Amino acid sequence: MLGLIRAGPLQNDYFAKDAIIKKEEHMVKVGVIGARGYTGEELIKILIKHPGVRLTYLAATLEKATPISEIFPHFKKRCDVKCENFSVFKASEQCDLLFLALPHTVSMDVVPAFVKKNKMIVDLSADYRLKNTGIYKQWYHKTHKDKKNISKFIYGLPELYREKIKKASCVANPGCYPTAAILGIVPALVSGFADREGIIIDAKSGVSGAGKKVALEYIFPEVNENFKGYKYNIHQHSPEINQELSKVTLSRVNVTFCPHLLPIKCGIFETIYIKLNKSVEPEKIEAVYRNFYKNEAFVRVKPLGNLPELKDVGGTNFCDIGLVVDASKKLLVVVSVIDNLIKGAAGQAVQNMNLMCGFDEEMALL
Amino acid sequence: MLGLIRAGPLQNDYFAKDAIIKKEEHMVKVGVIGARGYTGEELIKILIKHPGVRLTYLAATLEKATPISEIFPHFKKRCDVKCENFSVFKASEQCDLLFLALPHTVSMDVVPAFVKKNKMIVDLSADYRLKNTGIYKQWYHKTHKDKKNISKFIYGLPELYREKIKKASCVANPGCYPTAAILGIVPALVSGFADREGIIIDAKSGVSGAGKKVALEYIFPEVNENFKGYKYNIHQHSPEINQELSKVTLSRVNVTFCPHLLPIKCGIFETIYIKLNKSVEPEKIEAVYRNFYKNEAFVRVKPLGNLPELKDVGGTNFCDIGLVVDASKKLLVVVSVIDNLIKGAAGQAVQNMNLMCGFDEEMALL
Amino acid sequence: MLGLIRAGPLQNDYFAKDAIIKKEEHMVKVGVIGARGYTGEELIKILIKHPGVRLTYLAATLEKATPISEIFPHFKKRCDVKCENFSVFKASEQCDLLFLALPHTVSMDVVPAFVKKNKMIVDLSADYRLKNTGIYKQWYHKTHKDKKNISKFIYGLPELYREKIKKASCVANPGCYPTAAILGIVPALVSGFADREGIIIDAKSGVSGAGKKVALEYIFPEVNENFKGYKYNIHQHSPEINQELSKVTLSRVNVTFCPHLLPIKCGIFETIYIKLNKSVEPEKIEAVYRNFYKNEAFVRVKPLGNLPELKDVGGTNFCDIGLVVDASKKLLVVVSVIDNLIKGAAGQAVQNMNLMCGFDEEMALL
Amino acid sequence: MLGLIRAGPLQNDYFAKDAIIKKEEHMVKVGVIGARGYTGEELIKILIKHPGVRLTYLAATLEKATPISEIFPHFKKRCDVKCENFSVFKASEQCDLLFLALPHTVSMDVVPAFVKKNKMIVDLSADYRLKNTGIYKQWYHKTHKDKKNISKFIYGLPELYREKIKKASCVANPGCYPTAAILGIVPALVSGFADREGIIIDAKSGVSGAGKKVALEYIFPEVNENFKGYKYNIHQHSPEINQELSKVTLSRVNVTFCPHLLPIKCGIFETIYIKLNKSVEPEKIEAVYRNFYKNEAFVRVKPLGNLPELKDVGGTNFCDIGLVVDASKKLLVVVSVIDNLIKGAAGQAVQNMNLMCGFDEEMALL
Repeated sequence: MLGLIRAGPLQNDYFAKDAIIKKEEHMVKVGVIGARGYTGEELIKILIKHPGVRLTYLAATLEKATPISEIFPHFKKRCDVKCENFSVFKASEQCDLLFLALPHTVSMDVVPAFVKKNKMIVDLSADYRLKNTGIYKQWYHKTHKDKKNISKFIYGLPELYREKIKKASCVANPGCYPTAAILGIVPALVSGFADREGIIIDAKSGVSGAGKKVALEYIFPEVNENFKGYKYNIHQHSPEINQELSKVTLSRVNVTFCPHLLPIKCGIFETIYIKLNKSVEPEKIEAVYRNFYKNEAFVRVKPLGNLPELKDVGGTNFCDIGLVVDASKKLLVVVSVIDNLIKGAAGQAVQNMNLMCGFDEEMALL
Repeated sequence: MLGLIRAGPLQNDYFAKDAIIKKEEHMVKVGVIGARGYTGEELIKILIKHPGVRLTYLAATLEKATPISEIFPHFKKRCDVKCENFSVFKASEQCDLLFLALPHTVSMDVVPAFVKKNKMIVDLSADYRLKNTGIYKQWYHKTHKDKKNISKFIYGLPELYREKIKKASCVANPGCYPTAAILGIVPALVSGFADREGIIIDAKSGVSGAGKKVALEYIFPEVNENFKGYKYNIHQHSPEINQELSKVTLSRVNVTFCPHLLPIKCGIFETIYIKLNKSVEPEKIEAVYRNFYKNEAFVRVKPLGNLPELKDVGGTNFCDIGLVVDASKKLLVVVSVIDNLIKGAAGQAVQNMNLMCGFDEEMALL
Repeated sequence: MLGLIRAGPLQNDYFAKDAIIKKEEHMVKVGVIGARGYTGEELIKILIKHPGVRLTYLAATLEKATPISEIFPHFKKRCDVKCENFSVFKASEQCDLLFLALPHTVSMDVVPAFVKKNKMIVDLSADYRLKNTGIYKQWYHKTHKDKKNISKFIYGLPELYREKIKKASCVANPGCYPTAAILGIVPALVSGFADREGIIIDAKSGVSGAGKKVALEYIFPEVNENFKGYKYNIHQHSPEINQELSKVTLSRVNVTFCPHLLPIKCGIFETIYIKLNKSVEPEKIEAVYRNFYKNEAFVRVKPLGNLPELKDVGGTNFCDIGLVVDASKKLLVVVSVIDNLIKGAAGQAVQNMNLMCGFDEEMALL
Repeated sequence: MLGLIRAGPLQNDYFAKDAIIKKEEHMVKVGVIGARGYTGEELIKILIKHPGVRLTYLAATLEKATPISEIFPHFKKRCDVKCENFSVFKASEQCDLLFLALPHTVSMDVVPAFVKKNKMIVDLSADYRLKNTGIYKQWYHKTHKDKKNISKFIYGLPELYREKIKKASCVANPGCYPTAAILGIVPALVSGFADREGIIIDAKSGVSGAGKKVALEYIFPEVNENFKGYKYNIHQHSPEINQELSKVTLSRVNVTFCPHLLPIKCGIFETIYIKLNKSVEPEKIEAVYRNFYKNEAFVRVKPLGNLPELKDVGGTNFCDIGLVVDASKKLLVVVSVIDNLIKGAAGQAVQNMNLMCGFDEEMALL
């Protein structure tokens, strides 16, 4: 067999690059609006390896059009798409599907035009996640400008809404904290043994969770060898978590959410404290979680008592879940970890795209 | 006045080194057993600046006696005391007071000899903290060998036991996690508005909290850009926290204690969730804390809603406390932060020594 | 077109996983000996994404055979090959090609058996790099045990020895420091304008360069916020660099090599000082480098005066090169950066495998 | 003896705070202009522990006067001096000596007023370091506005200019890179065995070397797990190094200076390559260095072949020097390390103040 391989010509039919790059005409043309941020960067990294799409358009606020490999030198020899100032016209002309990696309150300015042109949209901002515009205004301090399109957007958590996403044209990609929180809490709530009151989420995030924000509190000397909490009870991801948990339980859930800043670039680690409303054997709780995610490619439930670490999910699209039960206190502690830029943003966005476009859900994500 | 200063001779009487170093015969002679660890190192750093003591003895497990400045090159030109293998005889002969910076289960081997010789002892291990030897055995997996001396040791948390410490010859220096936890919880418990059940401590510690432990999980590539939980509900500091909180409330307190490993060298950050047993105005809670610590040099209560950060206490003997109240949920969130090597170990040990020796409590610690 | 895509069935022929995974019988069966180290881990990461190979065998020193996903939880749902104690018989039976990610002086114990069985070998240790066994002994403190096979091994730097590697069965994968050094220096030497004497390499490496070594100097508190030099002039990679540069220049080159330890996990950054033997226009020097690497997929020469950063190559198989010329001092400063675990180890090993097996050189590496 | 101590009253005469704080009227009143930066912060930390001075004035650009303990919460209970907008009048009225921790090109705006009022000045900016205003303009891109006072400023490197500093009213505190470079190079140059041509300084600095600069390149995600070079041959500290080395050798020295950015907060590590103009025994070189610094409190020469690490000097005012000689190549490699905020800024500034005011040179610095 080695002989065959070494001979060369034969296996070329099977392994050469050309064979893998499938016929151009069947590829989905995609664009990224907001290509310079950390999420945009990760999206590009995934999309250039995706066998089913062609990255045709990149936009960011720039003085002049610049190859993305000049903005991110690591893309040199890997991707030379030009990044240019945003134009609805060009974006629509060159793309079938658009990833909006824009700041909150900015996405809603560009979405209507794309909806009108029947483009597929994966919006990574918060603008179309909250269904109640009053709550949106309360937390994002701006009146929603595109109320009529909100209902078109499916909340893009495939583990809960896979079938809807498959049929959707517009997806609101979940926030990073909510992704880890919802995946960590939902099995307990739907199983009936968890108390929907008193849930506490002690969340820790890497600095990229704030985006590529240039502020004193994020410069290296302020972050390294430091750790701090912020926005206890007043973080804008609280209403998103509550909305989704309430939907699942058909009742009002109101979690306590306390986020912290870790001296790392990427990763979200949530320690979630859930009261049990009756005595349940720990093994049964594990079984509930394991069963809930048994067909999921990107959720991994650890053996009971075994905790995931951030490095288990760094650079991947996985959400790892650990379970510790204190039967005497009727307390379930769930640990839920993700890479905030992948499962918490770009990876999940591609997972949604895969579903929307009929690709294998795991494509380019394993 | 400048003229005077520049002239030189005059101010020498006031400012020269000799004037500050007080007469030798009044200085307390101190030694550190376990001088090579992180805690030993910090003890030496503090003690060589302390105007009331003379560091006369250093011991560690070594092939041969070595100047401490060869073990820690940063001590060169600052401290050249020789570090040698431990000898009860030499330690006793050369010291009035001994700091035992030894691993748990080792201190109890050396304490009896020092007690017999009427030496003052500050033990930084856990061996004399737990008053119940059954609990000690359960958590430290060894039968206590020196039961009769346990009662001689005062739990060295000056904020609770100052007067006893002043009169004590033997002090059990508190654990790092317990120091932050107890200082953060006690005011709420003694005030009567907090529920002693359901207290959750979500703790995060820097790597030096494990001591100078050489293990795969602590090498840099495993820790940097990582974060993990460990020993949820089964950390050996739980019984210490419970013992002290129970003492204060005169009832059994059993906290949920979930520690995590931060990718930093030093610092403990505890987010403590406490249920309120009635509606209390947040301002009143703040007042209770502020009043509780109003005469304390080393506890600082932040304004309501304001959270401390690890860098506020790094390298200091302070414990900073932040308070956030969610009145609607009757939940108090306390943040308590310390430098685990200072207020959580070496600094607090010196604070105890200051009390035991009649020095100003803050001496060498501000 | 979108309609087509969304319709689903059709594009499956083109994009489904099954279409990409080529016929099993044409795949090269590969194994990794030394699967638990950082290099082994990276090899597995790359190989499970490689469309032309099947990972069939993993070996490490273990108490009992264990799925690799238990050793590295991040492989769960991605790779479940069992890792077992090394057996020449099983390795040979199950593999066409073996990656030896073993410590120096260990590889030479297992190579002879594989050579005898005509297996392809990529050895990532230093054992078959140095052609002079006297020098080997001098630097690795052991007499070479397999002298007769040394000459069978091609030095696996594709940019210099591509054609030989294509025909080779045995490849000695270069060291991490030498990879960056040789790629950074060779164009200057072969161009004739550089002085082969007086070359200084000021190298900085992340901690994983030492492998997964559990030692006090590598624990987090000793590394973070620290930086140090080590083994100036006496690092075992010096003779490897000198051997290769001497081969290229047909004369004795003897560089000054001063390595340092960076508080990061991965990455090698070399600042190389080269004297020019005549006045050359900086642009000409840039042209020489650019021309030298014009057909290389994995070497990127930056515009003159532009310096690469470690983050440009982190997680990639690229070597990025920057050039700064001080004409008045007749000095060329070359910066050469790689990810020590990828281009400096696992990535280059796969690049070599690709050449040896007739795959596209970039396969699984972009 | 212990009895005495424990008795209390007696030792108070010797150890009580009051005894240590010397009579107010003999203390030097000092102020810090630029109190919010990293250097200002370190200055305050040192000055509040200094027994010979009283910190009376702090200035920074602020919306309104604010206690320094609100700007830096770690000063709470340690220092409550108010920080206010700069006023020449108040500064002069309240201080005998002023530390100017201002950006380059700003110091020269405030110096003339203080000179006129006969205040003592330690300027930590570059404004009065370069004696040639043409060179100043070339590197700092601004015409010097206070040429007439430049000659009043002594270059504040006590190891070279102690006697002049003692008599000076105005001191230009050296730059951080120059401090480490000059201390590392001067002994070799004055000894006569070093070649003043071809000196290469490969320098690595922590992020605080850039001051408290809020820029994209300094945010945590851009710095952690990264390393880069910058301003090779064009860093503004080059002319300062050259000026001082030229002064010492009475001939033109022109070093190659290549700085790099380390992913740490504090510390400068310089690897300096110096050619020997004749064969010298390594021991003789060590002897020269050891002799040169034999009376220095803050320079420590390591045994030959022994390299200092950044952690040896972190938080201290020391400069540690290591020496490696390659006799066959006639090359001396000097490693010179400092804490850029202490010996490279605030510590050295206080060392200068100590000399200027007739205090013990080491006061508050050990």
